Amino acid sequence: MSAASQARRRRGADDLEIVAFERGRFTSYSACGIPYFLGGLVPRAEQLIARSPETFRDAYAVDVRIRHEVTEVDLGRGAVRARNLENGEEHWEGFDQLLVATGGEPLRPPLPGAEAKGIFGVQTLEDGLAVRRAFDEEEPRRAVVVGAGYIGLEMAEAFKMQGLDVSVVHRDSQPMPTLDPDMGVLVADAMRKMGISVHSGEEVVGFDARQGRVTAVVTERRSIPADIVVLGLGVRPSTTLAVAAGIPNGPSGGIRVDRRMRTTIEGVWAAGDCAEKFHRISRGPVSIALGTHANKEGRVAGINIGGGDAAFPGVIGTAVTKVCEWEVARTGLRESEAPGAGFEPLGVVVDSTTRAGYYPGAQPIKTKLVVEKGTGRLLGAQIVGREGAAKRIDVLAAVLWSGLGVDEILNLDLSYSPPYSPVWDPVLIAARKAWERVEDTVDECR
Amino acid sequence: MSAASQARRRRGADDLEIVAFERGRFTSYSACGIPYFLGGLVPRAEQLIARSPETFRDAYAVDVRIRHEVTEVDLGRGAVRARNLENGEEHWEGFDQLLVATGGEPLRPPLPGAEAKGIFGVQTLEDGLAVRRAFDEEEPRRAVVVGAGYIGLEMAEAFKMQGLDVSVVHRDSQPMPTLDPDMGVLVADAMRKMGISVHSGEEVVGFDARQGRVTAVVTERRSIPADIVVLGLGVRPSTTLAVAAGIPNGPSGGIRVDRRMRTTIEGVWAAGDCAEKFHRISRGPVSIALGTHANKEGRVAGINIGGGDAAFPGVIGTAVTKVCEWEVARTGLRESEAPGAGFEPLGVVVDSTTRAGYYPGAQPIKTKLVVEKGTGRLLGAQIVGREGAAKRIDVLAAVLWSGLGVDEILNLDLSYSPPYSPVWDPVLIAARKAWERVEDTVDECR
Repeated sequence: MSAASQARRRRGADDLEIVAFERGRFTSYSACGIPYFLGGLVPRAEQLIARSPETFRDAYAVDVRIRHEVTEVDLGRGAVRARNLENGEEHWEGFDQLLVATGGEPLRPPLPGAEAKGIFGVQTLEDGLAVRRAFDEEEPRRAVVVGAGYIGLEMAEAFKMQGLDVSVVHRDSQPMPTLDPDMGVLVADAMRKMGISVHSGEEVVGFDARQGRVTAVVTERRSIPADIVVLGLGVRPSTTLAVAAGIPNGPSGGIRVDRRMRTTIEGVWAAGDCAEKFHRISRGPVSIALGTHANKEGRVAGINIGGGDAAFPGVIGTAVTKVCEWEVARTGLRESEAPGAGFEPLGVVVDSTTRAGYYPGAQPIKTKLVVEKGTGRLLGAQIVGREGAAKRIDVLAAVLWSGLGVDEILNLDLSYSPPYSPVWDPVLIAARKAWERVEDTVDECR
Repeated sequence: MSAASQARRRRGADDLEIVAFERGRFTSYSACGIPYFLGGLVPRAEQLIARSPETFRDAYAVDVRIRHEVTEVDLGRGAVRARNLENGEEHWEGFDQLLVATGGEPLRPPLPGAEAKGIFGVQTLEDGLAVRRAFDEEEPRRAVVVGAGYIGLEMAEAFKMQGLDVSVVHRDSQPMPTLDPDMGVLVADAMRKMGISVHSGEEVVGFDARQGRVTAVVTERRSIPADIVVLGLGVRPSTTLAVAAGIPNGPSGGIRVDRRMRTTIEGVWAAGDCAEKFHRISRGPVSIALGTHANKEGRVAGINIGGGDAAFPGVIGTAVTKVCEWEVARTGLRESEAPGAGFEPLGVVVDSTTRAGYYPGAQPIKTKLVVEKGTGRLLGAQIVGREGAAKRIDVLAAVLWSGLGVDEILNLDLSYSPPYSPVWDPVLIAARKAWERVEDTVDECR
């Protein structure tokens, strides 16, 4: 819908007809907001909807057809086959330009018992509404979250806020596999202190059910009783439709696009979780499902479809989440993945506070920088801390994007005032320490 | 003391003798914390002291002599004359290397009545303690702050927190003259809503006193009753001692230094509020009194004095403050000062929220970007908002430092999650709008 809006800005309704097919009932809602709706922080699901199909129809002259699934794309004819999910009718709709914005699909390993009632994904707003209904109707007491990435941790928080007993089970050594283990362990510790059971390094092998309703999550090592289960195992680009039509994927499994979000086929565009992204630090293709990328890519595609010229320059893997009082953020490459991208990394972890130490509300913040040995070039950063910690990742994302080294970062003119920062901001302290380590390493080589 | 610590890190006590003269009683304290001590947020003045003279003596082998004022520098002899303020004795101390770190001195126009009791500056910790004593002993009810820069606004907040009636009187059209007036007016509005009287555009002409104690601040237009007055009229570099010794100032009135913080004289260094700074956007010399610059410069000077090699790359004028619930931040050039630096500016102001709109605690944030017409290069930014607004200036400072244009900034991979940001962060929205304005302006020229 970002693309539709941008295309419409450039070309009026008399010049460009825009038809949008959506399998679900909703357009333009915040999928990232679902855990906060389920936790009760956001009382009504409608609050997550930015613009309704009616708004798009009325204000943007976009012909939105909800509950319509596109089942086939015929590039030769320049048409898509759409199925009305209400009545099963199908028709072909022609196009001059096609945008594929099919999003991501949740990873769902075929585990025994996975079809039991009480097991949910939380990818779409419909999913969220189903979990909410289960809360109201079943009054579950014990929740198990499978997976400890962003959505897993956010759902653990949501269940906790609803007063449930919460367990998280996942296969990696620490929660948040997008962090290095030395930072992820802090998240695990914080979760346990909040009373969440964390079972790391455990593969789920199936689910127990009674009368078709889930009763336990079974791992290699134990059976965890559960009244409700959420699967947060990540998503992959949803490209089945595009691939069947002959629109090629890239090596990451997302639809291959250029910087203007055009696929390899003239007149066919892709944007959002279904589209491959270019990682500016590893210089390789990646699939990252995130609303902020999807929005930017949609804008770029829409400008280009509308006859303008815009480019999406890629991503650096920035992400942030919160688990109750804890804030977690990351950008760039982990120490553990830097060698795979051709860098010899150095990891430096620094403790500081979010405000001047004497100022009320100063909170702990732990910052890890991943820098290149020898040069001190920043490769990535991770933050775990409390209130006021996480958004500092944006400063590191900005300098990582700009290609600065820690010797330059340590002198950055960042804002200082006791309510906001120590006289050396945690970002600067981390850069200083990292640069000292780089200099030490250079000395070692002499 | 930053310099002393860094020099000591590189050269041990057997290799380098370090003597530090300090006119006051304290070393290494947070002058920026004084308003929070006076507002009662920081209960004890000792909390503002990072390291005592004893710590420097014992842990760093720095011979700190408090209550010693250096009254003369003899570059030819390589010696300073120091006066013991306790007993009036003087002696000459030789040096191989000299660091001038005399700081800033408050601007104090010679106004009639300015010597009355109850009128204070708040530059040193001694000043702060004197105001605190006045609180306790005189129980003032009506406070007037003269000046509406950072210290003025922070003192207005402090008085407000102590339950006083507070007036702020200042000569500019809006508070916070480091903001453009269209942003400064937001600060004035917020202050008035908090019950602070703001008299803008009024020059103070003198003070009324009874029995030697201040009773009113007199402006061209009115007399404002006052039991206590704080002067926050800014500071200038304190260079009298250096200039008398033949150490030259630069055009900004601070001691001229190179990037290594060396003055024009071999073996003589300067750092902190007394030293001139290079502004990376205007490409000219400036004087900015700020603890974070002082610390960085001290570090650089100390590394170089200790035989290392470090450079201070300059400043871009980043600053932040809070006035009760309002947060104010800025970096780079104001729209109004950009032409003087040779840029044709475009100012764009955007309203957004600090979190996703539906997330509890989302607060208003107004962001102004100043960009160069035609190119879209970022020249400066200003933020006025509530909780979570101000520190976003650091992202803009980082990209301003790196020389990015708003067309690059709008696609930055900044972190997104509903508790921290809308799906388009306010920084990105501002860059988008600014880029649209730049494109419109380019179209106009065609």
